[in-house]
Amino acid sequence: MNPTASASVSIEPTGVRGVSLYRLPQVQDERGMLTFAEVRSHMPFAVERFFMVYRVPSREVRGEHAHKVLHQFLVCVSGSCSVIADDGAAGREFLLNSPALGLYLPPMTWCVHHKYSPDAVLLVLASDVYESADYIRDYAVFMDLVRTRV
Amino acid sequence: MNPTASASVSIEPTGVRGVSLYRLPQVQDERGMLTFAEVRSHMPFAVERFFMVYRVPSREVRGEHAHKVLHQFLVCVSGSCSVIADDGAAGREFLLNSPALGLYLPPMTWCVHHKYSPDAVLLVLASDVYESADYIRDYAVFMDLVRTRV
Repeated sequence: MNPTASASVSIEPTGVRGVSLYRLPQVQDERGMLTFAEVRSHMPFAVERFFMVYRVPSREVRGEHAHKVLHQFLVCVSGSCSVIADDGAAGREFLLNSPALGLYLPPMTWCVHHKYSPDAVLLVLASDVYESADYIRDYAVFMDLVRTRV
Repeated sequence: MNPTASASVSIEPTGVRGVSLYRLPQVQDERGMLTFAEVRSHMPFAVERFFMVYRVPSREVRGEHAHKVLHQFLVCVSGSCSVIADDGAAGREFLLNSPALGLYLPPMTWCVHHKYSPDAVLLVLASDVYESADYIRDYAVFMDLVRTRV
């Protein structure tokens, strides 16, 4: 378990405003795999909360909201799920199917999760504690806010 | 996905110095399960790094070291594994088999992971970046340091 700090994280823009796909370093040896990220050097926010979503029936759709100020970093640490990220002008679907794939969602990104595999566990690192007032749950309201901010 | 900040985390001492077992809140609805923790209010350190260990052959033993100053919080987010935590005077084995079970390991805890199930993914939140000088890899050296500190 000797990941060096020099192992690089690849960060790809996605065409959705501020949304980035992270390919995290993987260290493999005879004892298995290790994937890691450093908060200060790799991630664009401090982690104040984490949550895990699991045992989601495959027909279910989760998310379907945006956040006003919350930053999130999503890793499907087991199984797979799909995440649609939409900035109000462009949207893209991401298949998260590896602990080494992270999806960064800045504030004001409409997000939908679906197609959870039976064994899927979605880990979300978040920049703040839960605040119901930070949620935008109506897509029309989200679009109004997007237009206001442009 | 409406976890309230009031949902409580149960924190149990374990008999091993400073090591605590966390039972994280679980929120269940028809769309699946959600488990969460807040860093400031629930956890005894700021998260500076996270890593995931997976695809560990079941015969393999990982860990087998202590840290001088690093704090760690372990969650087996998929499958199961066993973690032995040892303060030099008392040791105990913990079966981690739920995303809602977290094991906090303070500095100067000798730790061994084993019995990984084929689908196990161990998530570790850590208080600092990787520093090879922080590792104590020899149990005799660990015991010498424990005796010095008592």
